[in-house]
Amino acid sequence: MKIFGHSGHRAHEAKRELIPGELVPTIETPNRIDRVLETLNQRGFAPLMECPALSRDDLLLVHDADYLSFLETAWDEWTRSYDPELDGIGFVWPHRNRPPRVPEAIEGKLGYYFFDGVSPITQHVWTAATGAAGAARGGALHLASTGEPVFAPIRPPGHHACRNMGGGTSYLNHTALAAATLAKDGSRVAILDVDAHHGNGTQDIFWQSPSVLTVSIHADPAHDYPYFSGYADEIGAGAGEGFNLNLPLQPGSAWGRYSEALQAALARITDFSPDYVVVALGVDAYRADPSGKLALEREDFSRIGEAIASIGNPKMFVFEGGYDERAIGECVARVLEPTAGR
Amino acid sequence: MKIFGHSGHRAHEAKRELIPGELVPTIETPNRIDRVLETLNQRGFAPLMECPALSRDDLLLVHDADYLSFLETAWDEWTRSYDPELDGIGFVWPHRNRPPRVPEAIEGKLGYYFFDGVSPITQHVWTAATGAAGAARGGALHLASTGEPVFAPIRPPGHHACRNMGGGTSYLNHTALAAATLAKDGSRVAILDVDAHHGNGTQDIFWQSPSVLTVSIHADPAHDYPYFSGYADEIGAGAGEGFNLNLPLQPGSAWGRYSEALQAALARITDFSPDYVVVALGVDAYRADPSGKLALEREDFSRIGEAIASIGNPKMFVFEGGYDERAIGECVARVLEPTAGR
Repeated sequence: MKIFGHSGHRAHEAKRELIPGELVPTIETPNRIDRVLETLNQRGFAPLMECPALSRDDLLLVHDADYLSFLETAWDEWTRSYDPELDGIGFVWPHRNRPPRVPEAIEGKLGYYFFDGVSPITQHVWTAATGAAGAARGGALHLASTGEPVFAPIRPPGHHACRNMGGGTSYLNHTALAAATLAKDGSRVAILDVDAHHGNGTQDIFWQSPSVLTVSIHADPAHDYPYFSGYADEIGAGAGEGFNLNLPLQPGSAWGRYSEALQAALARITDFSPDYVVVALGVDAYRADPSGKLALEREDFSRIGEAIASIGNPKMFVFEGGYDERAIGECVARVLEPTAGR
Repeated sequence: MKIFGHSGHRAHEAKRELIPGELVPTIETPNRIDRVLETLNQRGFAPLMECPALSRDDLLLVHDADYLSFLETAWDEWTRSYDPELDGIGFVWPHRNRPPRVPEAIEGKLGYYFFDGVSPITQHVWTAATGAAGAARGGALHLASTGEPVFAPIRPPGHHACRNMGGGTSYLNHTALAAATLAKDGSRVAILDVDAHHGNGTQDIFWQSPSVLTVSIHADPAHDYPYFSGYADEIGAGAGEGFNLNLPLQPGSAWGRYSEALQAALARITDFSPDYVVVALGVDAYRADPSGKLALEREDFSRIGEAIASIGNPKMFVFEGGYDERAIGECVARVLEPTAGR
């Protein structure tokens, strides 16, 4: 298994993020990657291969031009009006009784282009996100040319980033970029999102696509972030109808319920007979994770890894959420090991 | 001129509100009413008459049942999961790429039922808002039965509250409730909103109504709150098409541009020949106001008052925004005096 990354993520660290009623220090830190790489190193995985960042044009595969232009310039716009000691966070959002329109002021754009206060604009967000996207593409190209499994330990996370907006600490959707890169030659790609939160951005990007199947196992959005998508009745539209599967779980669900959902997910993926499988590898379903509401044990991540390895298709894993720094390295390694043949 | 109010507002004071990038102490405080009443008293206005609060059913005239149920119970729901030392503020909002749906969890509902982080749920928000609504209705009934002009110095503000959601420190739309009360017998009512921010809630509530004309003069929403409504091309719909007039002004506009908009507003209102005029009396167009982006002088509020008095229809004034405590009493009094015959 090859490991692809980009060290530019380190420059991006939000000072604070909005949670209900409070602004608190973010839990989405550069340390997360350090913990994962440490564990992979201890367990004898290959060293990380540094990938170049992507350009704006490369990202048009999965994002709209206006969103990319916003993201690239948002920090400069923000600091023209606001103290650079503050990260850029919106405070008012498009009203659901009006068709959304893009305001000219940066405060308004932050509400338009992000659906939450969890995803601040920082000075180096563009560097970090395009670097992570570069590793996702680099990994996908390696998988396509060699068939060898790949892991991209990258941050910030990406699976909440939609075609035209960010959220949930995600700015660019690396998982979607990897899948779209693999699908470019006409290949069929299945995405399995095991992060504890719905991969709403990935769903959005492939909503109308029958060639990329999106499957997500997550805590029921009626009770957990992102609240406004991830319901079982979201199945895709147009040519993509039937090619999105959401498997929401009651908060507090442990291995029993999780394994049933995982079996259903893998059955759907097998039925789709993809050329490649991309796993959105969040490990915040771990019971002690500060952001997740599921209740898996560390050992359960080995079971997830075995189940994923049991379907034979060539695979890529992209790091998503997971915030308990004492556990994320181990949980990630446990998922990877069966596919890595360790 | 009679003065109608409700003292229950005093119990509602949010600890903090979200502004771009920060949570800061709210500027929407009980002191605002004290400052206004002090000035009115000094200038010889009649004393305040206390009105009873409205019940949930009374509010169905301008709000949806599900929103009212949420608002009435939100604090209890919030404190079942969160520290009562924190006010209830959402952190994620309906995604504009999905049809909105109501989550079950309170954090999700806060995002669904408020379009910003400016309007926290506090322990006594229901008491305060229904009290203010009571004064608005009391004033409207007095105007309808006597023709005598009325002022309701009430808070929290109301003109940002839509039929199905709140925002901008507004929870219930008192201006709309006064207008709907006056319109109940088939009367034609014009609303003139001179608050520096678009009266988006009032626009929403009467969007399809040809019997209540809504006119708002405010800073251009491309550059100022609420960013997502208040544009000149919003003219109403259905039977209400042509019965909403937005007059956005460039930020920094002073009396020259303001007076042109005011003349256009009054011409439209005169043309509509209403039986009553309800003025949404925010005074945050004052140049030193901490929330507004317009640049009126104190004397300009006398000019606004004279222009409003010059159209003869029976009138009611409802207090909305205005946050410079050194000036709001004087600015309000200057608007009222010509109509009060002082």
